[in-house]
Amino acid sequence: MKKKLSRNAKKIDQFLIKFLKRQKSLLVEPMKYGVISGGKKIRSTIIYDTGKIFNVEEKKLLNICAAVECIHSYSLIHDDLPCMDDDIIRRGKPSAHIKFGEASAVLAGNCLLTLAFEIIADKKYLINSSMKNEIIRSLAKCSGHTGIAGGQELDLKFENKKKNINQVIDMQIKKTGKLFSFCLYAVGVIAKRSNKEKFFLSSLGDEIGLLFQLADDFLDKKGSKKLIGKPVKKDSKKGKSTLLSLMGEKKAYSYAYNLKKKILRKLENHGKKANELINTIEFILERQF
Amino acid sequence: MKKKLSRNAKKIDQFLIKFLKRQKSLLVEPMKYGVISGGKKIRSTIIYDTGKIFNVEEKKLLNICAAVECIHSYSLIHDDLPCMDDDIIRRGKPSAHIKFGEASAVLAGNCLLTLAFEIIADKKYLINSSMKNEIIRSLAKCSGHTGIAGGQELDLKFENKKKNINQVIDMQIKKTGKLFSFCLYAVGVIAKRSNKEKFFLSSLGDEIGLLFQLADDFLDKKGSKKLIGKPVKKDSKKGKSTLLSLMGEKKAYSYAYNLKKKILRKLENHGKKANELINTIEFILERQF
Repeated sequence: MKKKLSRNAKKIDQFLIKFLKRQKSLLVEPMKYGVISGGKKIRSTIIYDTGKIFNVEEKKLLNICAAVECIHSYSLIHDDLPCMDDDIIRRGKPSAHIKFGEASAVLAGNCLLTLAFEIIADKKYLINSSMKNEIIRSLAKCSGHTGIAGGQELDLKFENKKKNINQVIDMQIKKTGKLFSFCLYAVGVIAKRSNKEKFFLSSLGDEIGLLFQLADDFLDKKGSKKLIGKPVKKDSKKGKSTLLSLMGEKKAYSYAYNLKKKILRKLENHGKKANELINTIEFILERQF
Repeated sequence: MKKKLSRNAKKIDQFLIKFLKRQKSLLVEPMKYGVISGGKKIRSTIIYDTGKIFNVEEKKLLNICAAVECIHSYSLIHDDLPCMDDDIIRRGKPSAHIKFGEASAVLAGNCLLTLAFEIIADKKYLINSSMKNEIIRSLAKCSGHTGIAGGQELDLKFENKKKNINQVIDMQIKKTGKLFSFCLYAVGVIAKRSNKEKFFLSSLGDEIGLLFQLADDFLDKKGSKKLIGKPVKKDSKKGKSTLLSLMGEKKAYSYAYNLKKKILRKLENHGKKANELINTIEFILERQF
């Protein structure tokens, strides 16, 4: 599993370095700092794994992976800002705003967000224009006010407030789930699946994202700084609403266990072709608790 | 001219309100605050004016206009942040971070940037997919590290430093020129012009943007707070490098005058069809000095 992750990470890093070489600017360095090396690139691995289910060639997925990692990294750079979660360590290194200053971090984040769309609309990316547009539409919805950014707004607004489980699930699905949802949906587009199947993939992605977030909550509570590359127990210190804090450890664990079972059941139809995705989903949990 | 501007502004505001009604989120309010009402929507007017030259129907330009206003407003919201230019007034109202807090302002800016791409890739937007992709590519390049955001980074890095005229022109073309350049280029795409013509339109846009920036510099020096809706003489207080500060008033005025002449000469070939664009260009200068 680690070999698969690092193989994928290397491929995507190389693509991004090449893409960023096309044009120079002062922001290339903080952009690279945010997106290249470090980070497990778990979302990209889920894209490749889903591609295996539908026999999609890897080269048709590379731009999607790179775009997703740009979006993910942009959201981390901005989440770490003093006005957001105010975190000074990310992936074991100083956060972007500590390394480059706040203004450059905001701008580098903006540029990674912008770059994601450029990468998908790229001329050299050999899927047809109508697919590109459908993917861009979905990426925008999953990243903007109805997705990641909307989830982050809720997360901040929920701090030190009493929220119920459904409110927190809604927030986590936006903040984390939607980008996973995009990963599966985009593969569905490239594999020319029906609207019904794409909808199925979307909601499966929401669930995988929620599972990932739950695993992250456990890691924040139990993990070591070394393992996750950032200080632990941040959530409770900041009065963050998490499913773990609301449900307690035992209930949250059984919720995660059932969610995993539900996800695996949904993949049953695809037989052996889904093995890679199943392995990755197992890894998400195994790694964390 | 004022009638034309307000007619265009109204149309674009209505489109954006309708678009934002599709899905709810907490960020819709700060997004609307940033992009709706207030602002002359001069970039959109330039899009419509350029459309007249090539007989492009206005309905084919509406999404481009709305996207450009989203990008412009996002860049203003972020430029005003404490870590950037630290401005508390914008368009005669409190800046977004004063009104909604810094975190929501950063997120609303991000969401407007994201929305711009969603608006162009929108299913209901009836230009073909390949045009949409070409327009998205250009918008990303003009907004990201090689465009607006890259220009803002240079602007901040240039503060209180000695820079030469070419360095400042390069910065202003990125920061302001590139979005004007996109406006003209996008019309060229929809009007199915040749690559050569699109390149011509692009560089004409750079020049119009530079002229607009020069006019803005004069306004910052000479204008009233009431006229421009934000405090004046900000640039010199912040040690900003502008063409006006480098050249002095007399030289800068003649530079602007010659630039305008150059732009108008380039439009001569188009005869009467370019009258609307010429009027808008005259207005840019007339309004300001």
